[in-house]
Amino acid sequence: MVKGCSSMKYKNQLKPLMEDEPKGKGLKIAFIGAGSAVWSSRIIIDLILAKSLHGAKVYLMDINMERLNLITSFAKRYASELHADQEFVPTTDRIEAIKDADFVVNSAMYGGHMYYERMREICERHGYYRGINSVEWNMVSDYHTIWGYYQFKLALSIAKDVEEYAPNAWLINVANPVFELTTLIQRHVKIKMIGLCHGYHGIYNVMKELGLPREETEFEVLGFNHVIWLTKFKYKGEDAYPLLDKWIEEKAEKYWEHWRETQVNPFDIDLSPAAIDMYKRYGLLPVGDTVRGGTWMYHWDLKTKQKWYGPTGGPDSEIGWMMYIAFLNMQLQRLYEALKDQKHPLAAHIPPEWSGESIVPIIDSIANNRKGEYVVNTLNLGSIPGIPDNVAVEMPVQIDGKGVHRYIFEPLPKKIRDLVLLPRITRMEMALTAFLEGGREILEDWLHMDPRTKSTRQVQETIDDLLNMPGNEEMKKHFS
Amino acid sequence: MVKGCSSMKYKNQLKPLMEDEPKGKGLKIAFIGAGSAVWSSRIIIDLILAKSLHGAKVYLMDINMERLNLITSFAKRYASELHADQEFVPTTDRIEAIKDADFVVNSAMYGGHMYYERMREICERHGYYRGINSVEWNMVSDYHTIWGYYQFKLALSIAKDVEEYAPNAWLINVANPVFELTTLIQRHVKIKMIGLCHGYHGIYNVMKELGLPREETEFEVLGFNHVIWLTKFKYKGEDAYPLLDKWIEEKAEKYWEHWRETQVNPFDIDLSPAAIDMYKRYGLLPVGDTVRGGTWMYHWDLKTKQKWYGPTGGPDSEIGWMMYIAFLNMQLQRLYEALKDQKHPLAAHIPPEWSGESIVPIIDSIANNRKGEYVVNTLNLGSIPGIPDNVAVEMPVQIDGKGVHRYIFEPLPKKIRDLVLLPRITRMEMALTAFLEGGREILEDWLHMDPRTKSTRQVQETIDDLLNMPGNEEMKKHFS
Repeated sequence: MVKGCSSMKYKNQLKPLMEDEPKGKGLKIAFIGAGSAVWSSRIIIDLILAKSLHGAKVYLMDINMERLNLITSFAKRYASELHADQEFVPTTDRIEAIKDADFVVNSAMYGGHMYYERMREICERHGYYRGINSVEWNMVSDYHTIWGYYQFKLALSIAKDVEEYAPNAWLINVANPVFELTTLIQRHVKIKMIGLCHGYHGIYNVMKELGLPREETEFEVLGFNHVIWLTKFKYKGEDAYPLLDKWIEEKAEKYWEHWRETQVNPFDIDLSPAAIDMYKRYGLLPVGDTVRGGTWMYHWDLKTKQKWYGPTGGPDSEIGWMMYIAFLNMQLQRLYEALKDQKHPLAAHIPPEWSGESIVPIIDSIANNRKGEYVVNTLNLGSIPGIPDNVAVEMPVQIDGKGVHRYIFEPLPKKIRDLVLLPRITRMEMALTAFLEGGREILEDWLHMDPRTKSTRQVQETIDDLLNMPGNEEMKKHFS
Repeated sequence: MVKGCSSMKYKNQLKPLMEDEPKGKGLKIAFIGAGSAVWSSRIIIDLILAKSLHGAKVYLMDINMERLNLITSFAKRYASELHADQEFVPTTDRIEAIKDADFVVNSAMYGGHMYYERMREICERHGYYRGINSVEWNMVSDYHTIWGYYQFKLALSIAKDVEEYAPNAWLINVANPVFELTTLIQRHVKIKMIGLCHGYHGIYNVMKELGLPREETEFEVLGFNHVIWLTKFKYKGEDAYPLLDKWIEEKAEKYWEHWRETQVNPFDIDLSPAAIDMYKRYGLLPVGDTVRGGTWMYHWDLKTKQKWYGPTGGPDSEIGWMMYIAFLNMQLQRLYEALKDQKHPLAAHIPPEWSGESIVPIIDSIANNRKGEYVVNTLNLGSIPGIPDNVAVEMPVQIDGKGVHRYIFEPLPKKIRDLVLLPRITRMEMALTAFLEGGREILEDWLHMDPRTKSTRQVQETIDDLLNMPGNEEMKKHFS
């Protein structure tokens, strides 16, 4: 452990160093929820590009046969075109995929997006704009906490399968909510596990806008998943915050003017008025999905969201979120279409380039004992002072063949801890206890702390309608 | 330290054992805020009754000369009538009172009740019923946290005076908010200090109603000041919770019927529907002022409060609170009147009986090395698992000449920790950081988490009006 600062040097991330000889022989990697094809296809490309992992056997598991066929066809054809020596095995049997695996990657989402949209709709009828799941510092539309009963159950049972059938494996959990699930699994299941999220990549958009080349810029982010803050920011070894301040002073207004007229991507909010306001309010720049959080002051309604997140209202408005869902569907269509044309090489449609995701580099670091620095989620255990030990934090760590090595950091500013992290911990603990113990009172208290609640009757009716929704029968039993 | 349970045996509290020979000679005890005459007179009677503290020099300090004269006259005449060998010295000079003291008792309340009533009125104009200071698990009308800038400053400066002028003294802080002030002082001032509150005495009302004699009943309460829970409850060595359950089953309805027709004292809520509902909701009986807390479900408006706390609406409704203020004024009048009649013995008006407060017994335990068990507030430091070390908890401890000795307890139930204690910790940390660092954003975030907030404009206007209130000039500067 290194006392003091750790810098996440971007150059480590520019390109994974995995071009040496094939060392993957005998390795078994399982992807649970591989039917999330848009996402999985990117990781599969990374795997295929990683020569140092050639020889591995890759299990693709999903309960959706159609999606499973899609991603398997993609993987096999792409691997064959690029002469990658990896075997892809489709299965709907989770145990078969997990048994004796070395790495299990979980991206499974219970029920799919539309299940949660139905719950959101019920909540909105009762006055809870964007759903009861949206609360201070958790406004992200697919980060399901208090109504995530089935999702929590699924992730925990996958972790328990790993414990039973692949006790030496690493579980890499990318399924949301990463904060809740990492904390839950690491507290209750005795396996090697990390949570991963690419949200921190948002900092690269900031660098680009400020004109700071990645090779010469270092950064450090700390916090919880989706609630991370730029604790260190250096350009050519010097503090780069003054460059950000100068940009705000001199360029922000003009940037926003242009951005308001041209915003296409609802996720283009890294330097939005919301981001800069949070920076001023809390003292550090919020990074990635963090900007989507905040209190209700940024989220009261569509108009408020548009003020802070641009004309789309950001990814978590009724507009931005539907744009995202449509985008996912479009990408899926493209994948289907690319596969239809058997003669045209896939790699021409979808160039063989590293996705930027750290899953495959991390697998390489562990399997081939190649030291790398990564931003991961894992129990704090003293790394960030002022945060309980048994809460999963997002932070830079070193990973090699022996696993995860922590640093010890400076504490986050008091205001970020008190106004942001403590409320978020409270919601996480409530969500975990709701899942572990059940009982209607926890849902009632959740809502009684919500600024959108105006009466106890509203609380009771919302809970009744949510629990009576078709598909929620088991959840209803759990909460009564 | 004792692993496991500690029982607060009531028999220790029945009567303090302080009737042996005078050992107080050379002892200096300072009362800061002694002009809270109704309260101080009770402690002074205890001191006079404590033969083992006779010989002590007692400084009574207040900035209000009239009140100071009142309490000094009372003390001198009462002591003389009862032949108590204690010298009472009035002073308006805090340093004079504190210098080289062995014990400093702080009960000072900045501004007096009416200062806070003015702030409450401003908040209510903006839609914050009972003020922005009333939040989940802190509905107590004189437990001033987020608007307590001057009160925090006063308490901290008294603690710093103790550090400088009486570094060996014990500071006993009874000034509210005990939770915030104990945490603040113990974190930032290097002195011996405890926080005290008699709120837990509420359990005696429960025992009385259940017909359990104090001599045969044991209890343990754990939590934070004003948020404590009955973690152990034994009658003749057997679990007494089943007796409570039986009372609820068989007698509660009838009790409430009678109580609704006869409630005179707004504090008579120990077995109110609110108390029993909290018991069912969280799994343990809330004790004393804890019943006054809860989420907004018990507090939306007067009608809601009356449903849960009886016709007065409990002590923290607009009715109950004014009854309490009037009661204090009435008691003060009685004190004045008692003193007017120079011929009539005071002790006939005000019988020489132990108040039940633990301040004087604690002073005796420390000064005369007489081991006793007390419920106090002090930093957790591992006593209650699952609560951060540097947060003041309320719990039973042993006290003797060497100071405070802790136990280690079982963790509180998850639901109490997550739904009650974590939200309360968050508010405490916010209040402390608001005081230590200032900045308007902390007030804004405080309100953005409040279920009564409907817009950011409401937040801004409320803060503006509060900070512009005459008397709040320094506070305004601090928060801008």
